[in-house]
Amino acid sequence: MKTALEVIEQHRSVRKFLQKDIEQKVLQQILESGRWASTSHHLQAYSVITVRNKEKKQALAELCGNQVHVKECPVFLVFCADLNRIKLCHELEEKPYVLDTVEPFLVATVDAALYGQNVLLAAEALGLGGVFIGGIRNQSAKVCELLTIPDYVFPVFGMCLGYPDLAKINEQKPRLPLTAIVHEEQYVVENQVAQIEEYNQVMKNYYETRSTGNRSQTWSDYVSETHKGPRRAHLRAFLEEKKFGFN
Amino acid sequence: MKTALEVIEQHRSVRKFLQKDIEQKVLQQILESGRWASTSHHLQAYSVITVRNKEKKQALAELCGNQVHVKECPVFLVFCADLNRIKLCHELEEKPYVLDTVEPFLVATVDAALYGQNVLLAAEALGLGGVFIGGIRNQSAKVCELLTIPDYVFPVFGMCLGYPDLAKINEQKPRLPLTAIVHEEQYVVENQVAQIEEYNQVMKNYYETRSTGNRSQTWSDYVSETHKGPRRAHLRAFLEEKKFGFN
Repeated sequence: MKTALEVIEQHRSVRKFLQKDIEQKVLQQILESGRWASTSHHLQAYSVITVRNKEKKQALAELCGNQVHVKECPVFLVFCADLNRIKLCHELEEKPYVLDTVEPFLVATVDAALYGQNVLLAAEALGLGGVFIGGIRNQSAKVCELLTIPDYVFPVFGMCLGYPDLAKINEQKPRLPLTAIVHEEQYVVENQVAQIEEYNQVMKNYYETRSTGNRSQTWSDYVSETHKGPRRAHLRAFLEEKKFGFN
Repeated sequence: MKTALEVIEQHRSVRKFLQKDIEQKVLQQILESGRWASTSHHLQAYSVITVRNKEKKQALAELCGNQVHVKECPVFLVFCADLNRIKLCHELEEKPYVLDTVEPFLVATVDAALYGQNVLLAAEALGLGGVFIGGIRNQSAKVCELLTIPDYVFPVFGMCLGYPDLAKINEQKPRLPLTAIVHEEQYVVENQVAQIEEYNQVMKNYYETRSTGNRSQTWSDYVSETHKGPRRAHLRAFLEEKKFGFN
Protein backbone atom coordinates (compact mmCIF):
# COMPACT_ATOMS: atom_id res chain seq x y z
CA MET A 1 0.00 0.00 0.00
CA LYS A 2 1.21 3.49 -0.85
CA THR A 3 2.47 5.86 1.82
CA ALA A 4 0.50 9.00 2.54
CA LEU A 5 3.06 11.18 0.75
CA GLU A 6 2.92 8.96 -2.33
CA VAL A 7 -0.87 9.24 -2.45
CA ILE A 8 -0.75 13.01 -1.99
CA GLU A 9 2.01 13.54 -4.54
CA GLN A 10 0.64 11.21 -7.20
CA HIS A 11 -2.81 12.78 -7.46
CA ARG A 12 -4.27 13.18 -10.90
CA SER A 13 -7.88 13.98 -11.70
CA VAL A 14 -9.63 10.96 -13.20
CA ARG A 15 -12.52 11.33 -15.63
CA LYS A 16 -12.37 7.93 -17.39
CA PHE A 17 -13.39 4.95 -15.32
CA LEU A 18 -13.39 1.17 -15.71
CA GLN A 19 -16.79 -0.53 -15.95
CA LYS A 20 -16.45 -1.66 -12.36
CA ASP A 21 -18.73 -0.81 -9.50
CA ILE A 22 -17.57 0.45 -6.11
CA GLU A 23 -18.58 -2.05 -3.44
CA GLN A 24 -20.75 -0.48 -0.76
CA LYS A 25 -18.30 -1.40 2.01
CA VAL A 26 -15.43 0.26 0.11
CA LEU A 27 -17.47 3.42 -0.39
CA GLN A 28 -18.37 3.42 3.28
CA GLN A 29 -14.73 3.03 4.30
CA ILE A 30 -13.80 6.01 2.13
CA LEU A 31 -16.58 8.22 3.47
CA GLU A 32 -15.88 7.12 7.03
CA SER A 33 -12.13 7.79 6.88
CA GLY A 34 -12.75 11.27 5.53
CA ARG A 35 -14.67 12.22 8.69
CA TRP A 36 -11.39 12.58 10.61
CA ALA A 37 -10.75 15.84 8.79
CA SER A 38 -10.41 18.97 10.90
CA THR A 39 -13.61 20.93 11.42
CA SER A 40 -14.17 24.41 12.83
CA HIS A 41 -15.45 24.31 16.45
CA HIS A 42 -16.21 20.62 15.94
CA LEU A 43 -19.28 21.71 13.96
CA GLN A 44 -18.86 19.10 11.20
CA ALA A 45 -20.93 21.43 9.05
CA TYR A 46 -21.04 19.22 5.98
CA SER A 47 -22.84 16.26 4.50
CA VAL A 48 -22.55 14.19 1.35
CA ILE A 49 -25.15 12.67 -0.95
CA THR A 50 -24.13 9.47 -2.74
CA VAL A 51 -25.68 8.92 -6.16
CA ARG A 52 -25.57 5.56 -7.95
CA ASN A 53 -28.93 5.78 -9.71
CA LYS A 54 -28.36 6.07 -13.48
CA GLU A 55 -31.19 8.46 -14.26
CA LYS A 56 -30.12 10.73 -11.44
CA LYS A 57 -26.50 10.72 -12.60
CA GLN A 58 -27.70 11.48 -16.13
CA ALA A 59 -29.73 14.43 -14.83
CA LEU A 60 -26.80 15.67 -12.74
CA ALA A 61 -24.42 15.35 -15.71
CA GLU A 62 -26.68 17.69 -17.65
CA LEU A 63 -27.06 20.11 -14.74
CA CYS A 64 -23.24 20.21 -14.38
CA GLY A 65 -22.82 21.40 -17.97
CA ASN A 66 -23.05 18.07 -19.81
CA GLN A 67 -20.03 16.52 -18.14
CA VAL A 68 -20.18 12.95 -19.40
CA HIS A 69 -18.00 11.58 -16.56
CA VAL A 70 -20.71 12.55 -14.07
CA LYS A 71 -22.97 10.05 -15.80
CA GLU A 72 -20.28 7.43 -16.41
CA CYS A 73 -18.67 7.21 -12.97
CA PRO A 74 -20.10 4.43 -10.78
CA VAL A 75 -20.63 6.79 -7.84
CA PHE A 76 -21.20 10.52 -7.91
CA LEU A 77 -20.89 12.42 -4.64
CA VAL A 78 -22.46 15.77 -3.84
CA PHE A 79 -20.66 17.54 -0.99
CA CYS A 80 -22.77 20.05 0.88
CA ALA A 81 -22.02 22.87 3.27
CA ASP A 82 -24.58 21.88 5.90
CA LEU A 83 -25.82 24.28 8.58
CA ASN A 84 -29.12 22.45 9.04
CA ARG A 85 -27.79 20.13 11.74
CA ILE A 86 -26.40 23.12 13.65
CA LYS A 87 -29.75 24.83 13.31
CA LEU A 88 -31.44 21.81 14.89
CA CYS A 89 -28.96 22.02 17.79
CA HIS A 90 -29.88 25.66 18.36
CA GLU A 91 -33.56 24.72 18.31
CA LEU A 92 -32.98 21.86 20.75
CA GLU A 93 -31.21 24.24 23.11
CA GLU A 94 -33.73 27.02 22.48
CA LYS A 95 -31.16 29.54 21.33
CA PRO A 96 -31.50 32.01 18.46
CA TYR A 97 -29.80 30.98 15.21
CA VAL A 98 -28.01 33.81 13.44
CA LEU A 99 -26.47 33.23 10.00
CA ASP A 100 -26.49 36.76 8.67
CA THR A 101 -22.74 37.28 8.16
CA VAL A 102 -20.31 35.74 5.64
CA GLU A 103 -18.61 33.68 8.36
CA PRO A 104 -21.06 30.74 8.72
CA PHE A 105 -21.15 30.30 4.93
CA LEU A 106 -17.35 30.34 4.87
CA VAL A 107 -16.99 27.89 7.77
CA ALA A 108 -19.38 25.35 6.30
CA THR A 109 -17.78 25.66 2.86
CA VAL A 110 -14.29 25.08 4.28
CA ASP A 111 -15.57 22.15 6.38
CA ALA A 112 -17.01 20.54 3.23
CA ALA A 113 -13.74 21.13 1.37
CA LEU A 114 -11.55 19.58 4.10
CA TYR A 115 -13.83 16.56 4.18
CA GLY A 116 -13.90 16.32 0.38
CA GLN A 117 -10.13 16.38 0.08
CA ASN A 118 -9.84 13.64 2.71
CA VAL A 119 -12.42 11.56 0.87
CA LEU A 120 -10.58 11.83 -2.44
CA LEU A 121 -7.25 10.90 -0.82
CA ALA A 122 -8.84 7.94 0.99
CA ALA A 123 -10.27 6.80 -2.34
CA GLU A 124 -6.90 7.17 -4.06
CA ALA A 125 -5.25 5.24 -1.23
CA LEU A 126 -7.57 2.32 -2.06
CA GLY A 127 -6.80 2.42 -5.78
CA LEU A 128 -9.76 4.50 -6.88
CA GLY A 129 -9.67 7.92 -8.50
CA GLY A 130 -11.91 10.88 -9.06
CA VAL A 131 -12.36 14.52 -9.88
CA PHE A 132 -14.01 17.48 -8.16
CA ILE A 133 -16.97 18.91 -10.09
CA GLY A 134 -17.54 22.64 -9.58
CA GLY A 135 -20.26 22.46 -12.24
CA ILE A 136 -22.64 21.35 -9.46
CA ARG A 137 -22.95 25.12 -8.84
CA ASN A 138 -24.15 25.81 -12.41
CA GLN A 139 -27.81 25.28 -11.56
CA SER A 140 -27.92 25.10 -7.79
CA ALA A 141 -31.68 25.29 -7.39
CA LYS A 142 -32.34 22.40 -9.77
CA VAL A 143 -29.69 20.27 -8.06
CA CYS A 144 -31.38 20.93 -4.72
CA GLU A 145 -34.76 20.02 -6.14
CA LEU A 146 -33.44 16.77 -7.63
CA LEU A 147 -31.74 15.72 -4.38
CA THR A 148 -34.33 17.22 -1.96
CA ILE A 149 -31.68 19.44 -0.38
CA PRO A 150 -33.36 21.65 2.25
CA ASP A 151 -32.71 25.18 3.51
CA TYR A 152 -29.42 25.74 5.34
CA VAL A 153 -27.70 23.24 3.03
CA PHE A 154 -25.71 24.17 -0.07
CA PRO A 155 -24.11 21.84 -2.67
CA VAL A 156 -20.51 23.16 -2.87
CA PHE A 157 -18.95 20.64 -5.26
CA GLY A 158 -19.53 17.23 -6.72
CA MET A 159 -17.05 14.40 -7.12
CA CYS A 160 -16.89 11.56 -9.64
CA LEU A 161 -15.49 8.40 -8.06
CA GLY A 162 -14.48 5.09 -9.60
CA TYR A 163 -11.63 2.84 -10.67
CA PRO A 164 -9.39 4.73 -13.12
CA ASP A 165 -9.03 3.56 -16.70
CA LEU A 166 -5.26 3.85 -16.60
CA ALA A 167 -4.99 3.75 -20.40
CA LYS A 168 -6.81 7.07 -20.56
CA ILE A 169 -5.21 8.95 -17.72
CA ASN A 170 -3.14 12.06 -18.38
CA GLU A 171 0.29 12.89 -17.05
CA GLN A 172 0.27 14.98 -13.88
CA LYS A 173 -0.47 18.62 -14.59
CA PRO A 174 2.52 20.71 -13.45
CA ARG A 175 1.80 22.98 -10.48
CA LEU A 176 3.11 26.47 -9.83
CA PRO A 177 6.58 26.22 -8.31
CA LEU A 178 6.87 26.43 -4.54
CA THR A 179 8.49 29.86 -4.80
CA ALA A 180 5.32 31.23 -6.38
CA ILE A 181 3.03 29.75 -3.70
CA VAL A 182 5.06 30.34 -0.55
CA HIS A 183 5.93 33.70 1.02
CA GLU A 184 8.37 33.84 3.91
CA GLU A 185 7.38 36.09 6.83
CA GLN A 186 5.38 38.42 4.59
CA TYR A 187 3.54 38.51 1.28
CA VAL A 188 5.69 39.72 -1.63
CA VAL A 189 4.11 40.86 -4.88
CA GLU A 190 7.23 41.85 -6.79
CA ASN A 191 8.22 38.65 -8.60
CA GLN A 192 4.81 37.40 -9.56
CA VAL A 193 4.69 38.46 -13.21
CA ALA A 194 8.08 36.86 -13.88
CA GLN A 195 6.90 33.69 -12.12
CA ILE A 196 3.78 33.58 -14.26
CA GLU A 197 5.80 34.00 -17.44
CA GLU A 198 8.13 31.18 -16.46
CA TYR A 199 5.21 28.92 -15.56
CA ASN A 200 3.53 29.83 -18.86
CA GLN A 201 6.29 27.97 -20.69
CA VAL A 202 6.00 24.93 -18.43
CA MET A 203 2.24 24.70 -19.00
CA LYS A 204 2.51 25.37 -22.73
CA ASN A 205 4.91 22.47 -23.02
CA TYR A 206 2.59 20.28 -20.96
CA TYR A 207 -0.49 21.11 -23.03
CA GLU A 208 1.42 20.51 -26.28
CA THR A 209 2.88 17.14 -25.29
CA ARG A 210 0.34 15.44 -23.01
CA SER A 211 -1.20 12.15 -24.12
CA THR A 212 -4.76 13.38 -24.71
CA GLY A 213 -6.45 16.71 -25.33
CA ASN A 214 -3.37 18.42 -26.81
CA ARG A 215 -3.47 22.13 -27.43
CA SER A 216 -1.07 25.05 -27.54
CA GLN A 217 -1.83 27.54 -24.81
CA THR A 218 -0.08 29.32 -21.97
CA TRP A 219 -1.38 29.28 -18.40
CA SER A 220 -2.14 32.99 -18.28
CA ASP A 221 -4.02 32.74 -21.56
CA TYR A 222 -6.08 29.88 -20.15
CA VAL A 223 -6.88 31.38 -16.76
CA SER A 224 -7.50 34.88 -18.12
CA GLU A 225 -10.56 33.41 -19.84
CA THR A 226 -12.07 32.42 -16.50
CA HIS A 227 -12.88 35.77 -14.90
CA LYS A 228 -13.46 38.15 -17.81
CA GLY A 229 -17.18 38.22 -17.00
CA PRO A 230 -19.38 37.54 -13.95
CA ARG A 231 -19.30 33.90 -12.86
CA ARG A 232 -22.33 31.97 -11.57
CA ALA A 233 -24.23 35.16 -10.93
CA HIS A 234 -27.21 33.29 -9.42
CA LEU A 235 -25.26 32.19 -6.34
CA ARG A 236 -25.88 35.12 -4.01
CA ALA A 237 -29.66 35.07 -4.46
CA PHE A 238 -29.77 31.28 -4.32
CA LEU A 239 -27.72 31.13 -1.12
CA GLU A 240 -29.84 33.77 0.56
CA GLU A 241 -32.93 31.76 -0.33
CA LYS A 242 -31.23 28.84 1.43
CA LYS A 243 -30.78 31.12 4.50
CA PHE A 244 -27.06 31.79 4.14
CA GLY A 245 -26.44 35.46 4.95
CA PHE A 246 -23.89 37.86 3.44
CA ASN A 247 -24.08 40.93 5.66
CA MET B 1 5.95 4.88 7.40
CA LYS B 2 2.21 5.06 7.88
CA THR B 3 -0.18 4.33 5.05
CA ALA B 4 -2.36 7.11 3.75
CA LEU B 5 -5.45 5.70 5.45
CA GLU B 6 -3.62 5.51 8.78
CA VAL B 7 -2.57 9.14 8.52
CA ILE B 8 -6.08 10.24 7.56
CA GLU B 9 -7.78 8.17 10.26
CA GLN B 10 -5.38 9.02 13.07
CA HIS B 11 -5.66 12.80 12.79
CA ARG B 12 -5.84 14.77 16.02
CA SER B 13 -5.40 18.50 16.35
CA VAL B 14 -2.11 19.32 18.07
CA ARG B 15 -1.67 22.47 20.16
CA LYS B 16 1.28 21.42 22.35
CA PHE B 17 4.61 21.09 20.62
CA LEU B 18 8.09 19.88 21.50
CA GLN B 19 10.84 22.49 21.66
CA LYS B 20 12.11 21.33 18.29
CA ASP B 21 12.38 23.36 15.14
CA ILE B 22 11.11 22.26 11.73
CA GLU B 23 14.04 22.00 9.33
CA GLN B 24 13.58 24.19 6.28
CA LYS B 25 13.84 21.24 3.90
CA VAL B 26 11.12 19.36 5.82
CA LEU B 27 8.84 22.40 5.70
CA GLN B 28 9.49 22.75 1.99
CA GLN B 29 8.68 19.11 1.38
CA ILE B 30 5.37 19.51 3.22
CA LEU B 31 4.41 22.68 1.34
CA GLU B 32 5.52 21.17 -1.96
CA SER B 33 3.57 17.92 -1.54
CA GLY B 34 0.42 19.85 -0.74
CA ARG B 35 0.49 21.54 -4.15
CA TRP B 36 -0.81 18.35 -5.80
CA ALA B 37 -4.24 19.08 -4.38
CA SER B 38 -7.08 19.54 -6.85
CA THR B 39 -7.75 23.11 -7.90
CA SER B 40 -10.66 24.63 -9.80
CA HIS B 41 -9.80 25.31 -13.49
CA HIS B 42 -6.13 24.85 -12.57
CA LEU B 43 -6.27 28.34 -11.05
CA GLN B 44 -4.23 27.43 -7.93
CA ALA B 45 -5.88 30.43 -6.32
CA TYR B 46 -4.07 30.19 -3.01
CA SER B 47 -0.82 31.06 -1.32
CA VAL B 48 0.73 30.52 2.10
CA ILE B 49 2.82 32.74 4.32
CA THR B 50 5.30 30.95 6.61
CA VAL B 51 6.04 32.67 9.92
CA ARG B 52 8.97 31.67 12.14
CA ASN B 53 9.76 35.10 13.54
CA LYS B 54 8.94 35.17 17.26
CA GLU B 55 7.64 38.72 17.47
CA LYS B 56 5.41 38.11 14.48
CA LYS B 57 4.05 34.89 15.96
CA GLN B 58 3.43 36.72 19.23
CA ALA B 59 1.52 39.44 17.38
CA LEU B 60 -0.47 36.85 15.41
CA ALA B 61 -1.27 34.91 18.60
CA GLU B 62 -2.86 38.06 20.00
CA LEU B 63 -4.72 38.83 16.77
CA CYS B 64 -6.09 35.26 16.76
CA GLY B 65 -7.68 35.73 20.18
CA ASN B 66 -4.67 35.08 22.42
CA GLN B 67 -4.13 31.53 21.26
CA VAL B 68 -0.86 30.64 22.95
CA HIS B 69 -0.07 27.76 20.55
CA VAL B 70 0.20 30.29 17.70
CA LYS B 71 3.15 31.78 19.53
CA GLU B 72 4.61 28.49 20.72
CA CYS B 73 4.56 26.46 17.51
CA PRO B 74 7.85 26.57 15.58
CA VAL B 75 6.11 27.46 12.32
CA PHE B 76 2.81 29.26 11.85
CA LEU B 77 1.25 29.17 8.39
CA VAL B 78 -1.26 31.66 7.03
CA PHE B 79 -3.27 30.20 4.14
CA CYS B 80 -4.71 32.76 1.76
CA ALA B 81 -7.38 32.70 -0.90
CA ASP B 82 -5.32 34.40 -3.60
CA LEU B 83 -6.87 35.99 -6.67
CA ASN B 84 -3.98 38.41 -7.19
CA ARG B 85 -2.03 36.02 -9.43
CA ILE B 86 -5.12 35.48 -11.58
CA LYS B 87 -5.58 39.23 -11.77
CA LEU B 88 -2.02 39.58 -13.09
CA CYS B 89 -2.82 36.96 -15.75
CA HIS B 90 -5.84 38.96 -16.88
CA GLU B 91 -3.68 42.08 -17.05
CA LEU B 92 -0.99 40.26 -19.03
CA GLU B 93 -3.60 39.09 -21.51
CA GLU B 94 -5.38 42.46 -21.49
CA LYS B 95 -8.72 41.06 -20.45
CA PRO B 96 -11.19 42.59 -17.97
CA TYR B 97 -11.13 41.08 -14.47
CA VAL B 98 -14.56 40.61 -12.93
CA LEU B 99 -14.86 39.42 -9.32
CA ASP B 100 -18.28 40.81 -8.47
CA THR B 101 -20.11 37.54 -7.70
CA VAL B 102 -19.76 35.10 -4.78
CA GLU B 103 -18.18 32.46 -7.04
CA PRO B 104 -14.54 33.71 -7.23
CA PHE B 105 -14.45 34.14 -3.44
CA LEU B 106 -15.83 30.63 -3.02
CA VAL B 107 -13.41 29.09 -5.54
CA ALA B 108 -10.32 30.66 -3.98
CA THR B 109 -11.49 29.72 -0.47
CA VAL B 110 -12.03 26.08 -1.47
CA ASP B 111 -8.66 26.02 -3.28
CA ALA B 112 -6.95 27.23 -0.09
CA ALA B 113 -8.80 24.62 1.97
CA LEU B 114 -7.88 21.71 -0.31
CA TYR B 115 -4.26 22.82 -0.19
CA GLY B 116 -4.35 23.30 3.58
CA GLN B 117 -5.76 19.84 4.21
CA ASN B 118 -3.06 18.30 1.99
CA VAL B 119 -0.39 20.25 3.85
CA LEU B 120 -1.59 19.06 7.26
CA LEU B 121 -1.73 15.45 6.09
CA ALA B 122 1.74 15.69 4.54
CA ALA B 123 3.00 17.08 7.85
CA GLU B 124 1.32 14.30 9.80
CA ALA B 125 2.81 11.73 7.44
CA LEU B 126 6.25 13.04 8.41
CA GLY B 127 5.56 12.83 12.15
CA LEU B 128 4.54 16.45 12.67
CA GLY B 129 1.17 17.70 13.83
CA GLY B 130 -0.86 20.87 13.80
CA VAL B 131 -4.16 22.62 14.08
CA PHE B 132 -6.20 24.91 11.84
CA ILE B 133 -6.69 28.41 13.27
CA GLY B 134 -9.92 30.12 12.22
CA GLY B 135 -9.03 32.95 14.61
CA ILE B 136 -6.93 34.43 11.82
CA ARG B 137 -10.27 35.91 10.67
CA ASN B 138 -10.83 37.72 13.99
CA GLN B 139 -8.99 40.84 12.90
CA SER B 140 -8.43 40.39 9.19
CA ALA B 141 -7.26 43.91 8.42
CA LYS B 142 -4.55 43.87 11.09
CA VAL B 143 -3.32 40.46 9.92
CA CYS B 144 -3.05 41.82 6.38
CA GLU B 145 -1.16 44.86 7.59
CA LEU B 146 1.29 42.73 9.61
CA LEU B 147 1.97 40.36 6.70
CA THR B 148 1.70 42.97 3.88
CA ILE B 149 -1.15 41.03 2.28
CA PRO B 150 -2.39 42.99 -0.76
CA ASP B 151 -5.78 43.41 -2.41
CA TYR B 152 -7.30 40.29 -4.00
CA VAL B 153 -5.75 38.15 -1.23
CA PHE B 154 -7.62 37.00 1.88
CA PRO B 155 -6.23 35.06 4.90
CA VAL B 156 -8.75 32.19 5.26
CA PHE B 157 -7.18 30.21 8.09
CA GLY B 158 -3.92 29.79 9.94
CA MET B 159 -2.18 26.58 10.94
CA CYS B 160 0.19 25.81 13.81
CA LEU B 161 2.80 23.24 12.80
CA GLY B 162 5.41 21.40 14.86
CA TYR B 163 6.39 18.13 16.47
CA PRO B 164 3.61 17.00 18.83
CA ASP B 165 4.24 16.75 22.56
CA LEU B 166 2.68 13.30 22.77
CA ALA B 167 2.32 13.51 26.55
CA LYS B 168 -0.14 16.35 26.11
CA ILE B 169 -2.20 15.11 23.22
CA ASN B 170 -5.89 14.30 23.66
CA GLU B 171 -7.74 11.21 22.54
CA GLN B 172 -9.38 11.51 19.15
CA LYS B 173 -12.59 13.52 19.29
CA PRO B 174 -15.47 11.28 18.16
CA ARG B 175 -17.06 12.31 14.88
CA LEU B 176 -20.71 12.19 13.88
CA PRO B 177 -21.55 8.66 12.74
CA LEU B 178 -21.49 7.96 9.02
CA THR B 179 -25.28 7.62 8.96
CA ALA B 180 -25.59 11.27 10.03
CA ILE B 181 -23.18 12.55 7.38
CA VAL B 182 -24.13 10.44 4.37
CA HIS B 183 -27.42 10.54 2.48
CA GLU B 184 -28.15 7.91 -0.18
CA GLU B 185 -29.63 9.22 -3.44
CA GLN B 186 -31.31 12.16 -1.73
CA TYR B 187 -31.05 14.34 1.37
CA VAL B 188 -33.20 13.12 4.27
CA VAL B 189 -34.01 15.42 7.19
CA GLU B 190 -36.21 13.09 9.24
CA ASN B 191 -33.73 11.34 11.54
CA GLN B 192 -31.46 14.25 12.33
CA VAL B 193 -32.76 15.18 15.77
CA ALA B 194 -32.51 11.58 16.97
CA GLN B 195 -28.97 11.37 15.53
CA ILE B 196 -27.98 14.54 17.38
CA GLU B 197 -29.38 13.22 20.65
CA GLU B 198 -27.47 9.96 20.25
CA TYR B 199 -24.27 11.82 19.41
CA ASN B 200 -24.82 14.12 22.38
CA GLN B 201 -24.23 11.16 24.71
CA VAL B 202 -21.08 10.11 22.84
CA MET B 203 -19.59 13.61 23.08
CA LYS B 204 -20.68 14.08 26.71
CA ASN B 205 -18.84 10.90 27.59
CA TYR B 206 -15.79 12.06 25.62
CA TYR B 207 -15.69 15.49 27.29
CA GLU B 208 -16.09 13.92 30.75
CA THR B 209 -13.38 11.29 30.37
CA ARG B 210 -10.68 12.80 28.12
CA SER B 211 -7.19 13.29 29.50
CA THR B 212 -7.15 17.09 29.59
CA GLY B 213 -9.74 19.87 29.62
CA ASN B 214 -12.53 17.76 31.12
CA ARG B 215 -16.01 19.18 31.25
CA SER B 216 -19.58 17.94 31.17
CA GLN B 217 -21.38 19.13 28.06
CA THR B 218 -23.38 17.72 25.19
CA TRP B 219 -22.55 18.45 21.56
CA SER B 220 -25.75 20.40 20.88
CA ASP B 221 -25.17 22.50 23.98
CA TYR B 222 -21.63 23.26 22.77
CA VAL B 223 -22.43 24.08 19.15
CA SER B 224 -25.60 26.01 19.99
CA GLU B 225 -23.32 28.60 21.58
CA THR B 226 -21.57 29.23 18.28
CA HIS B 227 -24.27 30.89 16.19
CA LYS B 228 -26.56 32.61 18.67
CA GLY B 229 -25.26 36.00 17.54
CA PRO B 230 -23.58 37.43 14.41
CA ARG B 231 -20.10 35.97 13.81
CA ARG B 232 -17.13 37.98 12.52
CA ALA B 233 -19.38 40.74 11.30
CA HIS B 234 -16.47 42.69 9.78
CA LEU B 235 -15.84 40.10 7.06
CA ARG B 236 -18.14 41.35 4.33
CA ALA B 237 -16.81 44.93 4.41
CA PHE B 238 -13.23 43.74 4.78
CA LEU B 239 -13.51 41.35 1.83
CA GLU B 240 -15.05 43.99 -0.38
CA GLU B 241 -12.19 46.31 0.46
CA LYS B 242 -9.91 43.51 -0.71
CA LYS B 243 -11.91 43.46 -4.00
CA PHE B 244 -13.86 40.27 -3.39
CA GLY B 245 -17.43 40.81 -4.62
CA PHE B 246 -20.69 39.43 -3.22
CA ASN B 247 -23.29 40.35 -5.82
